[in-house]
Amino acid sequence: MIICKPTIDRLFLYICILLQIQEEKQEFVSSEELGDRLGVTPQTIRKDLTVFGQFGKKGKGYCVGELIWNIEEVLGLHCRRKIAVIGASHLGWALMNYCNFTSMGFDLAAIFDVAQNKIGSSINGIIVSHIDQMEEVIREKNIDIGIITVLEFDAQEVADKLIAAGVRGIWNFAPCQIKVPSTVQIKNENLSVGLSSLSFHLARQTLAGKEVGVL
Amino acid sequence: MIICKPTIDRLFLYICILLQIQEEKQEFVSSEELGDRLGVTPQTIRKDLTVFGQFGKKGKGYCVGELIWNIEEVLGLHCRRKIAVIGASHLGWALMNYCNFTSMGFDLAAIFDVAQNKIGSSINGIIVSHIDQMEEVIREKNIDIGIITVLEFDAQEVADKLIAAGVRGIWNFAPCQIKVPSTVQIKNENLSVGLSSLSFHLARQTLAGKEVGVL
Repeated sequence: MIICKPTIDRLFLYICILLQIQEEKQEFVSSEELGDRLGVTPQTIRKDLTVFGQFGKKGKGYCVGELIWNIEEVLGLHCRRKIAVIGASHLGWALMNYCNFTSMGFDLAAIFDVAQNKIGSSINGIIVSHIDQMEEVIREKNIDIGIITVLEFDAQEVADKLIAAGVRGIWNFAPCQIKVPSTVQIKNENLSVGLSSLSFHLARQTLAGKEVGVL
Repeated sequence: MIICKPTIDRLFLYICILLQIQEEKQEFVSSEELGDRLGVTPQTIRKDLTVFGQFGKKGKGYCVGELIWNIEEVLGLHCRRKIAVIGASHLGWALMNYCNFTSMGFDLAAIFDVAQNKIGSSINGIIVSHIDQMEEVIREKNIDIGIITVLEFDAQEVADKLIAAGVRGIWNFAPCQIKVPSTVQIKNENLSVGLSSLSFHLARQTLAGKEVGVL
């Protein structure tokens, strides 16, 4: 099965919305409703979903449960993955509350920090451990993905330790580019970029595109 | 000046790294160092920066301050913008601590929440106000951008009120697609997508690309 990259990118959005729809106890969804919720045309939705042989049922739309299962299969989300959060900061907390980890196929297995007042406290039922125990716990619990929310100065060191302990994927929120060997998947997430790009588009709107054009 | 979109996307990353380099009191930076910090080839850096007539000085590299000024000019970051955060949650806090708003050209002007225990408390020197006062404060302070970190069920209503009060850009972290008129810039940020895409690439690595190919 060959799927083009823009479709893959949209599939992640589809799965988020479909899980919400499922929580609302809705059994079927039309390409119009999906398109409306996602800001994509119903034609794009239908085209993207034909790769699954999913054409929907006339007058009813797509079966939400079936569609979730199929997309999860393609995205590798059926394989549950253990994750650890490094940095029990506001960002760490926010990510734990924000991402519906469990329904997305992830089990939060460990949280690490250095602050003595955080060690031993419980977040979402997980006890915060000292970062010195990280390598041992990662190995013991067979954790796949590390989420780095520490300061940029510590991020590469934390990443190196995670990799040495056997982590295969890193989601990095420290505003720096972490380097990893080719066997490890890395996603560097620089949140500031979102705000700057919004500002750029506002500036362009003001200038009516006269000074800087985008190809 | 016409700049292609991939270059624009990289310029946001360049500016983040250059601001870090400036904080480290480094006056000049080579395309090799920039490339190394960003995971981009020096050739790409040099190509991207030729649009500014910036070729760097042999043996010295680019003048950091000058480069920042030029990129900020193109990205519209010289025009300072007032921002408001709606939702004094962990995510709201995290964003306020994370993004170096001031050096990126943004002034945090207001924070809103509904929780009585948060109203009146101070975050980064800004007093948290009740969301009922939002429209009045946005108008009064002439706020340009609203950052939404409330729950998805409230996000569209908050956005509608922000727009009615005159906000021109919205950075939405609620995991839903907010709809805005064409005169308003929107950036919907769904953080779950990052984790899922990491999982997808791990699954592909395991399957050695045999089952799902990406075009």
